Amino acid sequence: MARFVFRDKSIYYEEYGKGKPIVVLNGIMMSTASWSEFVEPFSANNHLILLDFLDQGRSDHMTEPFSQALQADLLLALLDHLELEKVCLLGISYGGEVALRFALEHGDRLERLLLFNTTACTGPWLGDIGDAWNLASKDADAYYLTTIPVIYSPKFYRENNAWMEHRREALRPVFGNPRFVDAMVRLTNSAADYDVSGRLGEIKTPTMVVSCMEDYLTPMAEQKVIVNGIPGCEHVIIPGCGHASMYEKPVIFTALTLGFFNNTKEQFRIL
Amino acid sequence: MARFVFRDKSIYYEEYGKGKPIVVLNGIMMSTASWSEFVEPFSANNHLILLDFLDQGRSDHMTEPFSQALQADLLLALLDHLELEKVCLLGISYGGEVALRFALEHGDRLERLLLFNTTACTGPWLGDIGDAWNLASKDADAYYLTTIPVIYSPKFYRENNAWMEHRREALRPVFGNPRFVDAMVRLTNSAADYDVSGRLGEIKTPTMVVSCMEDYLTPMAEQKVIVNGIPGCEHVIIPGCGHASMYEKPVIFTALTLGFFNNTKEQFRIL
Amino acid sequence: MARFVFRDKSIYYEEYGKGKPIVVLNGIMMSTASWSEFVEPFSANNHLILLDFLDQGRSDHMTEPFSQALQADLLLALLDHLELEKVCLLGISYGGEVALRFALEHGDRLERLLLFNTTACTGPWLGDIGDAWNLASKDADAYYLTTIPVIYSPKFYRENNAWMEHRREALRPVFGNPRFVDAMVRLTNSAADYDVSGRLGEIKTPTMVVSCMEDYLTPMAEQKVIVNGIPGCEHVIIPGCGHASMYEKPVIFTALTLGFFNNTKEQFRIL
Amino acid sequence: MARFVFRDKSIYYEEYGKGKPIVVLNGIMMSTASWSEFVEPFSANNHLILLDFLDQGRSDHMTEPFSQALQADLLLALLDHLELEKVCLLGISYGGEVALRFALEHGDRLERLLLFNTTACTGPWLGDIGDAWNLASKDADAYYLTTIPVIYSPKFYRENNAWMEHRREALRPVFGNPRFVDAMVRLTNSAADYDVSGRLGEIKTPTMVVSCMEDYLTPMAEQKVIVNGIPGCEHVIIPGCGHASMYEKPVIFTALTLGFFNNTKEQFRIL
Repeated sequence: MARFVFRDKSIYYEEYGKGKPIVVLNGIMMSTASWSEFVEPFSANNHLILLDFLDQGRSDHMTEPFSQALQADLLLALLDHLELEKVCLLGISYGGEVALRFALEHGDRLERLLLFNTTACTGPWLGDIGDAWNLASKDADAYYLTTIPVIYSPKFYRENNAWMEHRREALRPVFGNPRFVDAMVRLTNSAADYDVSGRLGEIKTPTMVVSCMEDYLTPMAEQKVIVNGIPGCEHVIIPGCGHASMYEKPVIFTALTLGFFNNTKEQFRIL
Repeated sequence: MARFVFRDKSIYYEEYGKGKPIVVLNGIMMSTASWSEFVEPFSANNHLILLDFLDQGRSDHMTEPFSQALQADLLLALLDHLELEKVCLLGISYGGEVALRFALEHGDRLERLLLFNTTACTGPWLGDIGDAWNLASKDADAYYLTTIPVIYSPKFYRENNAWMEHRREALRPVFGNPRFVDAMVRLTNSAADYDVSGRLGEIKTPTMVVSCMEDYLTPMAEQKVIVNGIPGCEHVIIPGCGHASMYEKPVIFTALTLGFFNNTKEQFRIL
Repeated sequence: MARFVFRDKSIYYEEYGKGKPIVVLNGIMMSTASWSEFVEPFSANNHLILLDFLDQGRSDHMTEPFSQALQADLLLALLDHLELEKVCLLGISYGGEVALRFALEHGDRLERLLLFNTTACTGPWLGDIGDAWNLASKDADAYYLTTIPVIYSPKFYRENNAWMEHRREALRPVFGNPRFVDAMVRLTNSAADYDVSGRLGEIKTPTMVVSCMEDYLTPMAEQKVIVNGIPGCEHVIIPGCGHASMYEKPVIFTALTLGFFNNTKEQFRIL
Repeated sequence: MARFVFRDKSIYYEEYGKGKPIVVLNGIMMSTASWSEFVEPFSANNHLILLDFLDQGRSDHMTEPFSQALQADLLLALLDHLELEKVCLLGISYGGEVALRFALEHGDRLERLLLFNTTACTGPWLGDIGDAWNLASKDADAYYLTTIPVIYSPKFYRENNAWMEHRREALRPVFGNPRFVDAMVRLTNSAADYDVSGRLGEIKTPTMVVSCMEDYLTPMAEQKVIVNGIPGCEHVIIPGCGHASMYEKPVIFTALTLGFFNNTKEQFRIL
């Protein structure tokens, strides 16, 4: 619904509602359109801002490899463009990585930080999985089968198999589109050297980490690095839920988002 | 701040704020005063109602044994008295048991149900623990040591030992007061035959269960009975948290409460 | 070290030691050679039998698609060939699936059943992952990256990265060998219709299921189907361990194997 | 079956079988008699040694308060008396504490160390629970209800309620016997200052820690201190099992004991 220019690239974003500003950062395969079902509850009493990263959705594509750090710069430019001094920031997966990079560089612009399915470091294991994705990118079916099942829990996949099959049909032409897939490869590579694990102690923003028991891409054990690293970090676990938590458990996803951001109490310690 | 009469007993309750009505039901040792730190965030955009059960806080005490079912009747009377057709209901521990009893009998009065640290059934194990509490009730120190450590995680107890010791001093005269302790014994006994495990499938109210990994009184494994029993029940886990979740993890407690109740989307399925 | 003929195919197996017969069934990518480090402890006081399935290791390859049920027939033939009336049976992953098929058809030949990293059903999720493996099979690097990282925990992968890189070099020529990869595809497809979930209640053999918290291929939640399905099934969890449990936690793997099989007490109930 | 004198006290112990020496250290309420069902499997191929600590079972009672360190001295005296240079040591709960004390002082006498339901430190939480036990010790019913339910999982308690009730009848006269209860109080107090958490890194003995998900006395979270503290420590989890793991899961208890101790491979790393 709106655009601004960042380093010669046209960036797409959407705004809804009034109130406390909440910025939502997409996972790697997502776009602003992925949040359609969440717009109503997120913006009913808040000022919701959705953003397509560079190489994502309706924002301009890149032509060369780039670092994920650029996406954090983009977020800073967006906040400046919207004249938002401080925001609540939600990131999921790739978006959570950008959120952590941003928190380290521009923590003064954050009121609260909420991370779903986010790791502190790409590391050799996740790096190799990214390479597997990239090698599969030449074939739509291979790309679907390599990237999609792993982000759902087996139970959700089984219980919603008709929806999954419908989704597969919808994604096939997308995954067969070189423009989309090349952008995906660049996005994947942009996170190859991601590693904030040594600097987490610098983050002063009140943070909540949400881990999912059936997350096989950013497993719970890896997220404890963030929980243990950020001082006073809150930690919640969703059982029976895979990496795509907002699809598998939308009610819990919404509850944690609205409740963490709309708590009027600044420093909440009982003691 | 307000009172009404229920079967010849004067009942104490408190009201704060405007908006969606949220009723909070205490754990067995709690009272309206236990929620002082939560009043601000819970009532900033909602109509908060706190209640002292019979034999609790500033409500009248009983003189004879009674069934916990009476507390559910009391809740119904309160809703009628306040002319509230439908409310969001939060219950913790004993309050969660009353909430489940209420949901079974008066589900039409509930919009959403949120249960912290709640079991579906007293059972022989919890029943014997209740008997241990009752046998310790003649001695203030014994009562403290039998009832209090078990409701905290060892980590919280260790890290907040000064607060715990201060709390022990504050509770000693209370636990040495026969009027308080006799009420506690009656409250404990009122739940002796509690068992809704066979009827959970009847509950139609959208429900969320919050379990804590270090809850040694209503352990996580026991709460799965509720999660598996209520159709479509949501389930969230708080790691590193004991039975008194609102004291150990107030930020998460508040997030789940506000976010689950203030989600404007009625039936939220992505598929 | 030894061979016998099963339906015109030459089958390779190895025997070590004397005592209680223990048969070990390989995971899909394994062979008798994979157990080299375990031969000493497993055979010190037991009669150990290792087996290469059809299309595996030094056993003959197939030329046409076949059902995994054939591997259970092969196991029966091996026991008859060795004149073993009853054995202790260990299966991991694909080998665990064959073990469960065998337990259903020939439970009278089993004394005890030990399952590591085993699922009760291929299902749509695991089926799609198998298809991803098959689509990647034309390219050695793609096959490595699609099949290997997912069977390790990120922590093990990180802490033993030199070993992983060495393993990658060793596997590259193997994964580039069409004879090996075609057999892998047939093995993968042989399990496509595997589903014993509805028949687990028929199993009378004393069974122990070992699940690993970081198993992303046969996740813990899926293994509870087996635990809940087999009467009196024992269940153990290895934290911080991926799908290849025998590589990540050899001491625990060995302890559970020796201890479960060498317990002299037949029916062990304390009560 | 045998006795020796330790500092003027007559100490009772039992020996069974031949082979690798395995010493088993009791939990606080146990005695050599508690292991009757385990004697056969533990001694079939091993030299099993059971021991009653000071103030336990058929060993002499103390008259004054003492430190738990004395029990470790007692163990050293027993090994010397039996002329055992090195043993495999199993400790459960209180026995695990003594085992850790012993490992720190006399690690050269240990071949392997296996700890069930053991904490690294009494701490304020467990200390207060011990005080609750002591305050309940004057009344047989109070002592039973304060000490027994908490050591079982609710599920086991429910499913074996007839056995639990039978046990309660059997324990009532014991718990009403001041000689027994006074010894229990001394044993409880002997561990009041137990804390090896700062010295775990000194332990060189190959160690395995077994934690139980429903252990409410030495909860899993507390045992991670040991797992993280001892270099190379193995860790296994038993789901659905309370503190008295040998009663609730005897098959798994036996498997881990026999298999960990009878593994002939000294240093077992795959890599």
